[in-house]
Amino acid sequence: MHIESATSSQLVEWEKELSVHYERICQHELSLDITRGKPSAEQLHLSDKLDGILATDYRAADGTDTRNYGGMTGLSCARALGADLLQVPTEEVMAGGNSSLTLMYHAVLTGYLFGFAGNVPWRALESPKFLCPVPGYDRHFTICEQLGIGMLAIPLGKGGPDMECVEKHVREDGDIIGIWCVPKYANPTGITYNRETVERLAQLGQIANPGFRIFWDNAYAVHDLGPSINLASIRAATLENDTVDSVLQFASTSKVTHAGSGIAFVSASSANLDSLKLQMQAMTIGPDKVNQLRHSRFFTECTTLEEHMHKHASILKPKFECVLEHLQNALGDSGMGQWEKPRGGYFVSFNTRPGCAKAVVGLAADAGVKLTPAGATFPYGNDPEDSNIRIAPSFPPLEELDTAMSVFVLCVQLASVRQRLAQCRNASG
Amino acid sequence: MHIESATSSQLVEWEKELSVHYERICQHELSLDITRGKPSAEQLHLSDKLDGILATDYRAADGTDTRNYGGMTGLSCARALGADLLQVPTEEVMAGGNSSLTLMYHAVLTGYLFGFAGNVPWRALESPKFLCPVPGYDRHFTICEQLGIGMLAIPLGKGGPDMECVEKHVREDGDIIGIWCVPKYANPTGITYNRETVERLAQLGQIANPGFRIFWDNAYAVHDLGPSINLASIRAATLENDTVDSVLQFASTSKVTHAGSGIAFVSASSANLDSLKLQMQAMTIGPDKVNQLRHSRFFTECTTLEEHMHKHASILKPKFECVLEHLQNALGDSGMGQWEKPRGGYFVSFNTRPGCAKAVVGLAADAGVKLTPAGATFPYGNDPEDSNIRIAPSFPPLEELDTAMSVFVLCVQLASVRQRLAQCRNASG
Repeated sequence: MHIESATSSQLVEWEKELSVHYERICQHELSLDITRGKPSAEQLHLSDKLDGILATDYRAADGTDTRNYGGMTGLSCARALGADLLQVPTEEVMAGGNSSLTLMYHAVLTGYLFGFAGNVPWRALESPKFLCPVPGYDRHFTICEQLGIGMLAIPLGKGGPDMECVEKHVREDGDIIGIWCVPKYANPTGITYNRETVERLAQLGQIANPGFRIFWDNAYAVHDLGPSINLASIRAATLENDTVDSVLQFASTSKVTHAGSGIAFVSASSANLDSLKLQMQAMTIGPDKVNQLRHSRFFTECTTLEEHMHKHASILKPKFECVLEHLQNALGDSGMGQWEKPRGGYFVSFNTRPGCAKAVVGLAADAGVKLTPAGATFPYGNDPEDSNIRIAPSFPPLEELDTAMSVFVLCVQLASVRQRLAQCRNASG
Repeated sequence: MHIESATSSQLVEWEKELSVHYERICQHELSLDITRGKPSAEQLHLSDKLDGILATDYRAADGTDTRNYGGMTGLSCARALGADLLQVPTEEVMAGGNSSLTLMYHAVLTGYLFGFAGNVPWRALESPKFLCPVPGYDRHFTICEQLGIGMLAIPLGKGGPDMECVEKHVREDGDIIGIWCVPKYANPTGITYNRETVERLAQLGQIANPGFRIFWDNAYAVHDLGPSINLASIRAATLENDTVDSVLQFASTSKVTHAGSGIAFVSASSANLDSLKLQMQAMTIGPDKVNQLRHSRFFTECTTLEEHMHKHASILKPKFECVLEHLQNALGDSGMGQWEKPRGGYFVSFNTRPGCAKAVVGLAADAGVKLTPAGATFPYGNDPEDSNIRIAPSFPPLEELDTAMSVFVLCVQLASVRQRLAQCRNASG
């Protein structure tokens, strides 16, 4: 039944049934977690040959002894791997440590404290701000929040951020100095920016503060569940628009090999890389080149990137199907929520009826199913609609995910019916 | 002959001889490098079993799957290794990535941007400054310089920094918010702080700005060339003086295992660690735990820390002896320079006659021997005496080091004699 078409007495009955069901589940004392986009043990196992792959030959093809200090830009064969991931020239890539988040943090710090490519440091502006397409990735927002950089939420549609809105802000406010983008299989909605959006983003450099930078976090560049979607090249678009300095691209092997011990990449113009290196040189003599060599060998000796990602997809696909089946079976045509069917990435984004997200997350928690906190996908943790919930199906085994999702949909039903019931009572009261 | 006792005509003759010798060496087109404290290939080889040591068993003893995300404080077995290195309790240790410099940078950033343990951020002060015992480690100074934190040079004696001078500054200037210390086998002089110095440093917290922090970079904690020198515990001393929050200790395995791919540690009070973690949480989900596990296994399955460091010493000792023999044979009782005989660490610190260091480094460079730039061991690269040169004997093979040192002492002789000659001419002119 569609929730809007239920009468008050039907809602009362429905709430009773759902409550009984919910109470029964609470007694099972579950302990399930679908909060974060962590690879499963089965996925991690795909890369277990990494340790030992060097067979005590620590010398890279270019002669570098990877065991010693040095080489801020990373090993050339690792940079080539990053270039392959991001589809850019090797010389525009810097290969770093185990986290692209760390590279992004240092890029923001560079802009904030020192300025990119000779531009004014952001901290010298009255009110520096990033545009944040929402729902988005909470860790992006945390970086801005920590450094006191303001954030403006921008609606994210099926083809990318609302570009009218983006352009208006950039045109009218010279203190807009960045935008966070997850252009492919966006976290959490799973959408991929269309060509027009990429083009228009690449043109922002013509109207923005010269210190403005697009943070292009291509975290899911090769993380297809089926046939790959083609993301237009932001690099090519900035070349055409003479705005090459306006973009910094990021990627990592975190969800390709081992999540905590992969390697990360940043790609940018030489002016941007020089600024970033200048800042980073004060804090490191260079990244872990031994691990970079391991990754390079792995993708030449053991497998190819494409083949490897196919294996990931075959593990992940049934999990996404499980989530989508539960949503469709329990909530299809119910008026209790909306979701997209992602073609890659790590998440399913679910929108409850406005005002229900926190209630759903709370009910699920009490029933032993941990969800990402409601609001986490918005700057300052504030979802004005209290609607978005990010579901991360990758980590739990299929059986546990199945149980977690049956709890989730029940919680959505219960919260929705209770809200509707309260609305009806208020209306008649 | 002692340079001060040579007559003008003897100096002229001497200069001629040395110049001929120098010109001959320049024709050899050498390319030798004794600039940085890098381990040699032979030393790195001692740890080659690191890769492959996991034998596809990536699970730590406490059950952690090291391949996945998470664990800001590091793996418990890695923290235990850090505790062993720094002689502190495991729970006070955070194990990080491949560089203690990175941890130090983030600690300075934490103090500068946010303040430690609820104290005022250093950037809010009018003129925040670090005390810098000199000669010291250039990369410490670079961190301060980049963030615009002032630096005051403090003379470093045989038992540590001049504590009268340190205490005077701290008492008189509330903007002193830190001091850089390499307490054991100091970089570059090789001295170890005596007990009295450690005690007095631990008392600074009673008179300093509450945000004041001692950066205790114990980089050479276990890097003895012979019998170990006992460094008094700064932790114990701060416990006695109720100043536990005033110290942050650092160490790493960079010169223990592989230099670019080791693991780093910071040890501090829980209040300090909490502040540091709060800052670092915005930039990382956690360190490379797989590499931490490798290191833990290496020091339980392959060797002990003590045994391993003995092997390093047996490689390094002949190199230090080579340097000291050259200095003694060519420059002993010559009045052309002073040096210490280090009992551990990575450097020999050489002081030329005032005003000669740049000339020596220049002459050596022209003869194909690269030395650390004169002045590098002082804040802002400014050695007011133009005297200190850091010699790093670890990296080149013994034969190359022998050649490099014969060039070095010749350059010292030539620069000294030329300077003395100029002085005599000025005096008589």
